[in-house]
Amino acid sequence: MTFNVVFQPEGIKGCIQEGKTILEAARDLGVDIDAPCGGAVSCGKCKVKIREGYSEKDGIESKMGNISTVSMHEKTLLTEAEFAEGFRLACCTKIMGDVVIFVPDTSKALKQVILETGKENTFKIDPNIKKYHVKLTKPTLDDYRDDAGRLIDGLKACYKYLEDEIKIDYSCLLDLPDVLRKSQWDVIATLLDDREIIAVEEGNVDKVYGIAIDLGTTTIAAYLCELATGKVLFRDSMVNPQVCYGDDVVSRITYVMMNKDGLEKMNSLIIKELNRLIERMAESCGKAAQMISEVVIVCNTAMHHIALNINPSYLGCSPFTSVVRSSLDIKARDLGLNIMDGGNVHFLPIEAGFVGADNIAVLISEEPYKQDKKILIIDIGTNGEIAFGNRERLLVTSCATGPALEGAQIKFGMRAAPGAIEGVRIDEVSLEPSIKIIGDDKWHDGSIMVNVKGICGSGIIDAVAEMIKSGIVDKNGTIVKKNTSPRVRKDEKGKMEYVLLWNYENELGMDISITQKDIRAVQLAKAALYAGARILLKRSGFEKIDRIVLAGAFGSFINKESALTIGMFPDCGLENITAVGNAAGEGAKLALFDKSKRDEAKEVARFVEFVESAADKDFQEYFYEAMSFQQAKDGFTGNKKSLEETV
Amino acid sequence: MTFNVVFQPEGIKGCIQEGKTILEAARDLGVDIDAPCGGAVSCGKCKVKIREGYSEKDGIESKMGNISTVSMHEKTLLTEAEFAEGFRLACCTKIMGDVVIFVPDTSKALKQVILETGKENTFKIDPNIKKYHVKLTKPTLDDYRDDAGRLIDGLKACYKYLEDEIKIDYSCLLDLPDVLRKSQWDVIATLLDDREIIAVEEGNVDKVYGIAIDLGTTTIAAYLCELATGKVLFRDSMVNPQVCYGDDVVSRITYVMMNKDGLEKMNSLIIKELNRLIERMAESCGKAAQMISEVVIVCNTAMHHIALNINPSYLGCSPFTSVVRSSLDIKARDLGLNIMDGGNVHFLPIEAGFVGADNIAVLISEEPYKQDKKILIIDIGTNGEIAFGNRERLLVTSCATGPALEGAQIKFGMRAAPGAIEGVRIDEVSLEPSIKIIGDDKWHDGSIMVNVKGICGSGIIDAVAEMIKSGIVDKNGTIVKKNTSPRVRKDEKGKMEYVLLWNYENELGMDISITQKDIRAVQLAKAALYAGARILLKRSGFEKIDRIVLAGAFGSFINKESALTIGMFPDCGLENITAVGNAAGEGAKLALFDKSKRDEAKEVARFVEFVESAADKDFQEYFYEAMSFQQAKDGFTGNKKSLEETV
Repeated sequence: MTFNVVFQPEGIKGCIQEGKTILEAARDLGVDIDAPCGGAVSCGKCKVKIREGYSEKDGIESKMGNISTVSMHEKTLLTEAEFAEGFRLACCTKIMGDVVIFVPDTSKALKQVILETGKENTFKIDPNIKKYHVKLTKPTLDDYRDDAGRLIDGLKACYKYLEDEIKIDYSCLLDLPDVLRKSQWDVIATLLDDREIIAVEEGNVDKVYGIAIDLGTTTIAAYLCELATGKVLFRDSMVNPQVCYGDDVVSRITYVMMNKDGLEKMNSLIIKELNRLIERMAESCGKAAQMISEVVIVCNTAMHHIALNINPSYLGCSPFTSVVRSSLDIKARDLGLNIMDGGNVHFLPIEAGFVGADNIAVLISEEPYKQDKKILIIDIGTNGEIAFGNRERLLVTSCATGPALEGAQIKFGMRAAPGAIEGVRIDEVSLEPSIKIIGDDKWHDGSIMVNVKGICGSGIIDAVAEMIKSGIVDKNGTIVKKNTSPRVRKDEKGKMEYVLLWNYENELGMDISITQKDIRAVQLAKAALYAGARILLKRSGFEKIDRIVLAGAFGSFINKESALTIGMFPDCGLENITAVGNAAGEGAKLALFDKSKRDEAKEVARFVEFVESAADKDFQEYFYEAMSFQQAKDGFTGNKKSLEETV
Repeated sequence: MTFNVVFQPEGIKGCIQEGKTILEAARDLGVDIDAPCGGAVSCGKCKVKIREGYSEKDGIESKMGNISTVSMHEKTLLTEAEFAEGFRLACCTKIMGDVVIFVPDTSKALKQVILETGKENTFKIDPNIKKYHVKLTKPTLDDYRDDAGRLIDGLKACYKYLEDEIKIDYSCLLDLPDVLRKSQWDVIATLLDDREIIAVEEGNVDKVYGIAIDLGTTTIAAYLCELATGKVLFRDSMVNPQVCYGDDVVSRITYVMMNKDGLEKMNSLIIKELNRLIERMAESCGKAAQMISEVVIVCNTAMHHIALNINPSYLGCSPFTSVVRSSLDIKARDLGLNIMDGGNVHFLPIEAGFVGADNIAVLISEEPYKQDKKILIIDIGTNGEIAFGNRERLLVTSCATGPALEGAQIKFGMRAAPGAIEGVRIDEVSLEPSIKIIGDDKWHDGSIMVNVKGICGSGIIDAVAEMIKSGIVDKNGTIVKKNTSPRVRKDEKGKMEYVLLWNYENELGMDISITQKDIRAVQLAKAALYAGARILLKRSGFEKIDRIVLAGAFGSFINKESALTIGMFPDCGLENITAVGNAAGEGAKLALFDKSKRDEAKEVARFVEFVESAADKDFQEYFYEAMSFQQAKDGFTGNKKSLEETV
């Protein structure tokens, strides 16, 4: 049996099978509901209001109405007041009849603030795809060579350096005879790696286009490029549509494991959205998507497998093996990407289970393996990846930082999107805060009402660092009762918290606080990162870190001092810490512009030593030590000293 | 506007656009109507009877009714009596309203008698597809190689001779992780050319299957083979469904040129039918089509292009260039063939415009290039192809024999199918004939009523030879009035004919005759073949023909003496003429069993010299000379002598 379901405010309607949850219905109809926990009924973020088909007077125990009765989980995660207003959790409320559902802004996956531009490298231009102009002689009764043979002979005669054996893609044969004759035997051939003809065109079409895609767990950044000139013509980005299946890779892998058609659903969703993105970008530049010859994709291993429609389940359990690690060249048509018929999709190689092609992309962009200085590269996306070394040795590990640093598992956490608190200062005497909000240049001190939706990763780091400096949090991470300020208080369950904004100071109308639980989540994440870096330093045999590179959007937004204050990573002097932005996207572009970067990527994938840091005998000890906020007292250099002492 | 059309006796119904011809409607609805001329309104074979929607009293000048008025062509090709019965030609009668149409048996494309079995060669077994059993170690935290890498390493360790770089097909990655784990890391990998993994299976599945297909213009012969043993498990055949677009390649090329979606229609038709054939064959052996790893296809150039969905138009006009001549390996999924997902489709190379991969297949089967004796190979399919030479030199040409030798352009001509007259003897005194019918072992002399549908190629050759021997036809090919028999008579238009069966001697109820026009058609065909052979002999520089090989079904069915009598090809002594059956199919099988045969095919395609015989300065003279039936008087050897004299 199916029922009519309407989602407001967009008014999206559809027939939904009885018994599906509201979250499933939203996914089916393409309605955007944020579910950071992936429907695991643990985050309570997917609140929706039932407008029709639900009698308020039925109350929470209602067995009537057109939706399922309130579950135990909802009783924990929603307040009485919310129930009274008709709020329910989309992930555990089942559709039993016709309903009208309102999705509040706070429950939507928001457009991210994505740092797309990494540092601009100087690079060689030698793309994998090139165009060659060739004039052919017309066939005659004496020269009755076939069209393909004539074209290949013509190319070889003009361009002596081409490969001996030039193939022609099947798709290209279909247009070939007509194009040759329409063009009067004067054509432009598009070659893949100087050995396969993938397109033949008439006329003056010498520009070659490609797209570099950094397919992140949360966000997708894409660059439409002109290959022969190395120009980026257009940048675009979008939220990975898979966020509705969970914010982190583990939720998505779990979704695949628990649902028979889970992989197919997620794969077709990402391919569909990538096609939309490609088309939108091409259109913006006045091009057809069919003019794109190649796409380079970098992503972590789980995203890689899902984008390829390969079962990622085995990444999710020990020994965390991936299905394929080598770089891949796949016909766009096999993958379902609507670029040129014979177009190529290149995936950079993967290092190990949780260290993906995106990390390889960061490495070919930063090139630590070409340097003498020992560089620690930290890429905090939804996963934390760390590389350390130089031309002699390069180690890499993955850290289970969890999603705390990106705003999940934090009471008022959210992604870096407009309306998020991104900066916090706390007066050490009055303990009064001032805050900075994404999309608003000014710092606010509570004197005017502000429109905030939550607090993002960099805001949390800032808040915790300030709480440490002002003594609200001690070195063990415990919130200490301070009688000087009502902001440090016990919540209704008796747990300590620090109120950042009183309900009358913000338009959400709630006290926005940093809780003891939030501090613990940050402690776990930073300890994982710090311990991972320490394991790499120990294993490398090197004595010290010369430079720290923070890659990824998160690394660019955070306040480096705050990060050092909470001890997110070892210190090597503030002047030696650089944020490079989206280095993964940069690596993807480099692989698009210069095919030798792909060989470099293969070599790097062999050169780097993957360290399963959590399996190191010292990990537990390092992790435990790193849980402490000691360094706030010792200062930045104290951290460095203590680190070197342990090596 | 659309109308309801019903085809009887099958009762197939459908809505048809106003203005479509009955032939087009039949094609759309999948109703079998034979149209040897491809709808060019010249053969008059597509007679159908309008049962409803056509008023008999309207007569031939009717402007009313639900079909178009009688065309000039129909007036020529149909008799008054046929019009009176409601007969019309399907190719030029348009649908203007609801109609019920009866398709008589005589207007149906019949199941052919196909000679599938060529001579059985001894051959090497070294297929392009092989299976390798490999036991892998399970991944651990210390050995976290990816699945694909582990498999490739395992294969290389076990089978040292494999290529250095082994690729894995994308389709294969999709199943890989599950198969490896289900099989406990003990699998069978299917490799293409020892360098690409195209399938991975669990368990004891060491047999490899492939299908060799001889895709003829008229008939398709297919062989399901077990590659590792060289066994043919199952033979099957079908009429090429494209015969409804014309019997010969020119009609089909014309159809593509005249119809925007002509190529797409013919391509999807052939792919659909090949899939049906493959599935039927696999099923007959208790296999799934997914177990077929490779298909080898041989065909003439036009069929090759259409099967590949490549525009064949330019084959149809000077300088007759093909789009691609080299051998091709195409993923079955790109072609739409439903075999193994990663399966391969191999096309043998093409020689020149009208000399196709089927001729190459004949050559790799007969191997004239390995012999000292000079061999003339004649393959009369719907096109005539001749090769001549030995290990020193090999020449090949294509002859415009026209479809006469296959029964088209002959008044009572038909394909070699049950009910066709295949043998004729004429008593030299009484001029009374006896006939042999396909599907009937006995010779008939008119004493009992016989059920015949027409006369096929070998019957025509026989009839003409007998008419020459008995003096009914003179050396110029003219039917000579003989007062000794009423069977030699003038038809209603005053043209001479020989009545093979009186209307009371056969169930068609008509006088079945060989007309003067039929004799001329045979003369043109045999002269083209003979002149072609003579040009090759001249060009080769060789003095004589040591052996003649007749390839193809036609060559196997015809009476060699009759063929020599009419002078179809030069004589070299009856004992040196061999019929080898479907040598093209044999070549396809060899390429399936032994990949070195594919290299041999490439070499042959380079080695053979294509001769455009019609462009030779002597062709006209040779052709004119060969029009004569002189040899009947000179006897078999005289022909040989006269040929050698001209060299």
